[in-house]
Amino acid sequence: MSHYYAVIFSTVREIEKQEGYQEMSEKMLRLAQAQPGFIEIESVRGPDGRGMSVSYWRTLEDIRSWKQQNEHLMAQQMGKSRWYRSYKVRICKVEREYEFSAEL
Amino acid sequence: MSHYYAVIFSTVREIEKQEGYQEMSEKMLRLAQAQPGFIEIESVRGPDGRGMSVSYWRTLEDIRSWKQQNEHLMAQQMGKSRWYRSYKVRICKVEREYEFSAEL
Repeated sequence: MSHYYAVIFSTVREIEKQEGYQEMSEKMLRLAQAQPGFIEIESVRGPDGRGMSVSYWRTLEDIRSWKQQNEHLMAQQMGKSRWYRSYKVRICKVEREYEFSAEL
Repeated sequence: MSHYYAVIFSTVREIEKQEGYQEMSEKMLRLAQAQPGFIEIESVRGPDGRGMSVSYWRTLEDIRSWKQQNEHLMAQQMGKSRWYRSYKVRICKVEREYEFSAEL
């Protein structure tokens, strides 16, 4: 396996201020998928407002470009002022992976 | 920041076979927290059986020790034979992090 990178985005949302969140979230997903170096994204949201979204990218440069993308910058700003109580971002190098799938 | 490591555990559970899962999950959480090198864990589970759990560790050796811990080995075996339809594990080096918290 050649190395690739993960962005772990752990969020706590403002439960009562979600206007516009869903549309923006879907728009950012489409934009990210069209960015150079995008591999995939996995998102899970719990019932209590906590969520985790991990996106995978070919290179650190791809991650930087996505972070600086114009519409994404605007979304980040709105996320801070409206939708998120807090979040943490970790940029990681994936060093090893393995998987399991139950036989049908 | 000194480097540390993340284990991204993405799961798809068998919705209809969850007997014993909750107890085992809580037991493994307590065991992991008592392991050398454990930093923290974040888990989110969606309503559709998909889940994501990211644990953070000081070193790769700490992660190896946890993977080989006796009761954890047994839990992994039961996870494959009973509870999980599929899962993927990624071992990552956290290279950078930043966070945001809304002012009250």
